[in-house]
Amino acid sequence: MGGILDYLKELGMQVDSLIKEALLSETSDEFKDIVLHQVETGGKRVRPALAILSCLACGGSIERALPIAAAIELIHEYSLIFDDIIDRGEIRRGKPTVRKLYGDVMALLAGIHYRESISELVNRSWKAPTLHELVARTIKKIVEGERLDVLFEQAGRSDDYIIKHRYTQVSLEDYFKMIEYKTAALIEAACVAGAIVADAPHEWLEALKDYGRKIGLAFQLIDDLLDIFGEEKVFGKKVGKDIIEHKLGNAVILMSLEELPETDRNALLAILRKDKIEGDDVRRAIEIISKTRARKRVYELARKLVDEAKGSLQILPVSEARRKLLELADFIVERKF
Amino acid sequence: MGGILDYLKELGMQVDSLIKEALLSETSDEFKDIVLHQVETGGKRVRPALAILSCLACGGSIERALPIAAAIELIHEYSLIFDDIIDRGEIRRGKPTVRKLYGDVMALLAGIHYRESISELVNRSWKAPTLHELVARTIKKIVEGERLDVLFEQAGRSDDYIIKHRYTQVSLEDYFKMIEYKTAALIEAACVAGAIVADAPHEWLEALKDYGRKIGLAFQLIDDLLDIFGEEKVFGKKVGKDIIEHKLGNAVILMSLEELPETDRNALLAILRKDKIEGDDVRRAIEIISKTRARKRVYELARKLVDEAKGSLQILPVSEARRKLLELADFIVERKF
Repeated sequence: MGGILDYLKELGMQVDSLIKEALLSETSDEFKDIVLHQVETGGKRVRPALAILSCLACGGSIERALPIAAAIELIHEYSLIFDDIIDRGEIRRGKPTVRKLYGDVMALLAGIHYRESISELVNRSWKAPTLHELVARTIKKIVEGERLDVLFEQAGRSDDYIIKHRYTQVSLEDYFKMIEYKTAALIEAACVAGAIVADAPHEWLEALKDYGRKIGLAFQLIDDLLDIFGEEKVFGKKVGKDIIEHKLGNAVILMSLEELPETDRNALLAILRKDKIEGDDVRRAIEIISKTRARKRVYELARKLVDEAKGSLQILPVSEARRKLLELADFIVERKF
Repeated sequence: MGGILDYLKELGMQVDSLIKEALLSETSDEFKDIVLHQVETGGKRVRPALAILSCLACGGSIERALPIAAAIELIHEYSLIFDDIIDRGEIRRGKPTVRKLYGDVMALLAGIHYRESISELVNRSWKAPTLHELVARTIKKIVEGERLDVLFEQAGRSDDYIIKHRYTQVSLEDYFKMIEYKTAALIEAACVAGAIVADAPHEWLEALKDYGRKIGLAFQLIDDLLDIFGEEKVFGKKVGKDIIEHKLGNAVILMSLEELPETDRNALLAILRKDKIEGDDVRRAIEIISKTRARKRVYELARKLVDEAKGSLQILPVSEARRKLLELADFIVERKF
């Protein structure tokens, strides 16, 4: 199963030279290292691979897909730069974040610069006007998802506005809106963009849109699961990061809260609302969560979404690219955790 | 002479409904107030007026100019949101800044949202692909200008990177590069955009480009002058704000440093390098600066640039719009100070 990731990465890496070119255009020498750091931290390049495969699955060429695939990857990197500013993140993909290395001001300026490189790449693409619209709509959704994610946090911020407008309760409906915007929107956009540049018929575009949305939701559900139950070495992220960041916007936490008796429920919420969450708190929280069926329920929900996503692709003609998209969907839920 | 500002404002305000529409598209109810605040703080709307007048001066229609004029104004507002985050600004146009009212995180998200509304407006415009390129190039310049402006500061930041890479000396050449990017680029882009949507011949576009660049430079020179010698009531900004913000990137300060004998020169630099600059420091700094011919030299330089800018417009056919552009150029240097 690991093979698909290597395959995607190889496919996705084809956008790297386009990305660098766009980032370095109109960039002073002194700013270049700062601007390149984020994309040089690595990443799986899943989103550009999705754009390319979606284009191929609709009979389009790889050349047609490359500029928008590069733009889609850059949107992801753009969102990470700002995400790290907002969450004061210091490590990303095992490396220091842009803000950690160069400070918040330079990270902010790099982020703004990224958005212009995205625009340059879209401009070079086939069907640029349609893609400009797609990109604008998608980034606005990511902003809305990030806004909700921050407001779902239970402590840890000093802004009066956030403290006042924080959600003290988060419903599953709220949660799904948040992840649909924060995560699924861009994955969906990657697939839609591939269909657009392939001049795909409406039904194929809709099929890929549905596929993208659903694997995007499943991707976030599994990420939430890995956050709580992942093995540090396999996963490469700190276990319990969402707990440490006071997040109620994690499917496992939310579903466990639904099941827990009042005492445990209050104990878990009390941990999330502590100003500073220590290692012992994280262990205690995971212990409480483990009493519930949340882990199994989240996995099953992701599995169901992925099966539906695969079903959506049945309308597309049989091809190597379609086969890879089906394989990718399975990989998303079967990641080690 | 005050009439031109009212005229520009009336012209520029025609973009307000387009701006609001673009800002509110794909925006959740809870986010709307945050998103609208920046554009509701007022502003002179000089940039959209320049885009409209440039289009009219090339024989284009007002309708043709409106979407890109709205986008240009929104770029300005977008840059102000981030500028206030970077400089921890609390008051802008006599009102609390977005970050003061809603905190840095929401201001950041609002800023990112603004950029997508800009893209939506450009997309609606005549000659959208050319304008998308112009906008991307221009915003990258603004980023570079802001980067330099920050690195020209002499104290007041805790980022290791900035402390290490700060300019201890700023030449006039450095300064002009900084203001060309930070301020003149967008004013130039406003004029160029007007020419583009009017399908103007190459020479007219070049004339407006030169005009825009030069009035943009003059505009910043006079802003620097008003910062040091402006009357608080007339100007509406705190006098000596650049000194308080440790900025070496002010023409009056730089030109006075050229002239001052060593003792005064060191005294002025010592003030700019103080961690916390008080009212007495500002008064002392202005006193030192006043010993030089810097005030007069900066004014004369702005006057010269504006006269050249007016000269560039001679190639355009005589029209009411051209007359207003000429009048605007004069207004820029004759603002009260």
